[in-house]
Amino acid sequence: MATNNKFLFNKKLNLNPSELFTQLTQGNISALSRAITLVESNNPNHTKISNELISYCNSTTSKSLRIGITGVPGVGKSTFIESFGEIMIKENKKLAILAIDPSSQQTGGSILGDKTRMEELGKTPNVFIRPSPSGKTLGGVARSTRESILLCEAAGFDIILIETVGVGQSETEVHSMVDFFLLLMLTGAGDELQGIKRGIMEMADLVVINKADGNNTIKAKSAQKLLQSALHYLPPKASNWHVKTLTCSSLENIGINQIWENCLEYQIQMLKNGYLMQNRNSQNKNWFHQSISQHLQEIILNKPHIKELIELKEKQILNGELSPFLAAEEVSLVFRA
Amino acid sequence: MATNNKFLFNKKLNLNPSELFTQLTQGNISALSRAITLVESNNPNHTKISNELISYCNSTTSKSLRIGITGVPGVGKSTFIESFGEIMIKENKKLAILAIDPSSQQTGGSILGDKTRMEELGKTPNVFIRPSPSGKTLGGVARSTRESILLCEAAGFDIILIETVGVGQSETEVHSMVDFFLLLMLTGAGDELQGIKRGIMEMADLVVINKADGNNTIKAKSAQKLLQSALHYLPPKASNWHVKTLTCSSLENIGINQIWENCLEYQIQMLKNGYLMQNRNSQNKNWFHQSISQHLQEIILNKPHIKELIELKEKQILNGELSPFLAAEEVSLVFRA
Repeated sequence: MATNNKFLFNKKLNLNPSELFTQLTQGNISALSRAITLVESNNPNHTKISNELISYCNSTTSKSLRIGITGVPGVGKSTFIESFGEIMIKENKKLAILAIDPSSQQTGGSILGDKTRMEELGKTPNVFIRPSPSGKTLGGVARSTRESILLCEAAGFDIILIETVGVGQSETEVHSMVDFFLLLMLTGAGDELQGIKRGIMEMADLVVINKADGNNTIKAKSAQKLLQSALHYLPPKASNWHVKTLTCSSLENIGINQIWENCLEYQIQMLKNGYLMQNRNSQNKNWFHQSISQHLQEIILNKPHIKELIELKEKQILNGELSPFLAAEEVSLVFRA
Repeated sequence: MATNNKFLFNKKLNLNPSELFTQLTQGNISALSRAITLVESNNPNHTKISNELISYCNSTTSKSLRIGITGVPGVGKSTFIESFGEIMIKENKKLAILAIDPSSQQTGGSILGDKTRMEELGKTPNVFIRPSPSGKTLGGVARSTRESILLCEAAGFDIILIETVGVGQSETEVHSMVDFFLLLMLTGAGDELQGIKRGIMEMADLVVINKADGNNTIKAKSAQKLLQSALHYLPPKASNWHVKTLTCSSLENIGINQIWENCLEYQIQMLKNGYLMQNRNSQNKNWFHQSISQHLQEIILNKPHIKELIELKEKQILNGELSPFLAAEEVSLVFRA
């Protein structure tokens, strides 16, 4: 009876993993949507199915390019992606756009939630757009986005764009799942901004100054020179890739082509020198270790006797009888057993 | 013989925890330095001693105020702390300054490493300055800073200033260990900066626009108005504290007094409504849980049979036989056992 129920459940939502995988490889977009919903789900039944599905995807060889796009709110990411995407579509590429959009920790609301985004691209065939799942932590969004990349690739998408809102740790997460990391900037951002962005600058494979149009063109060009020379002070990349600074106007469609050419050049070079696969492998290794840590905590800390011990120690901490670190060490004695 | 050795070792470096604690409570600065070196040490013998020492400190009741100071590189934190510190010293406060300075992930170097910092304050009695330990992860720095706060309080310091370089997650770490969080800003930082700083803005108990001097004064005043109205859109604080925006000039020593008064007002209000202790308790709880996670990983993942399994799965991932997430789930079966 239980088996029968499970069968009905899967049947109803079309959640048979091998069937879903076959549909994916046929480029079935509705199957792709369902598959992503599956990897985003917290339902343990769904997780089981999605794990099986992902294991099929992993064995597909993909010639995709995974591009991460970041930049502070207001830099014009959505408009840029519109123009950028159009070029890819003209070259008969299939484009999937995913978003990493962690909510503000304290407000629980999405910063860019109210923005109308990428209207034109959304209507184009060969384009698949998927916003971040809501109500998830950055870690949760990151995992499901990582799996969604594999699903999109299985569905035959050549270019996977992953957009980040440019807040907090989301850039680091996106950087850990893409081949090519594009940083959008504005002119007049000032020294302070460059200071705070140093960590992000180091991750970039291409720096693009957006909104280089009208009165802003000259300023953008001189910012380009400054940034280009600033890039010299960064340590050389493991990929040996020479990071450029370009300018563009998403609105007037100027300079977008060069950005696309830079991406393609990267892909060719990195396939040749083996870095692309090497980098994906080391990313996989990192995901593996991160996942292990997650499971470890979920499983061990939920064991009843450990949960009880933790609650007891918490009380002692609140009463000032025990320091948090010492309490943690006392709990950890149980892990050693 | 082993015991004897250990005794000599402790004797030599004066590492007897109860003796050290007595010296601390006598306000012995050299003992404080040694105690902090102890909590920064990776030597397991030192950890044992420092745990005992910290457990004594925790039982001391302190009337200190822990102030976190953040702001992007270039905002003038060190000069601000010079002027700010001078006021405290005049009021006969004992001031300890600690730093959270995580190194840039990819370069391994400290961004502000070459800066000459707080020269005048360093020469003043009643002031204790301690930079971040080098060669440690943010997590490592954070733990030793947290413990150093307790040590400073045991040594009779009234004000503990914790400075962060304002990069990456260091603000969040500092926020998690202070009573009062002060955000330093500059004028002309632009909308983009405010965007990226929203998460930090939400943490602030006071926003201060620095370098409000000379030609910059008028700009600073209008930025103050803008920021003050922007603060209205942030969710109310659990402390019910009304966050202000102030301007100051660290160079010309203008407005520093009001900032100090704001801190004191906070301390009085929060002691009255109980939030100060409530917040410290919930911070303690968080440290406890973070420490547990750390121990858990260190202990379990270093068990030989688990280490071996992880290495095997890593190979399978690199060969494309297994997805990272599935591999992690297979490893996690061992945790369930």
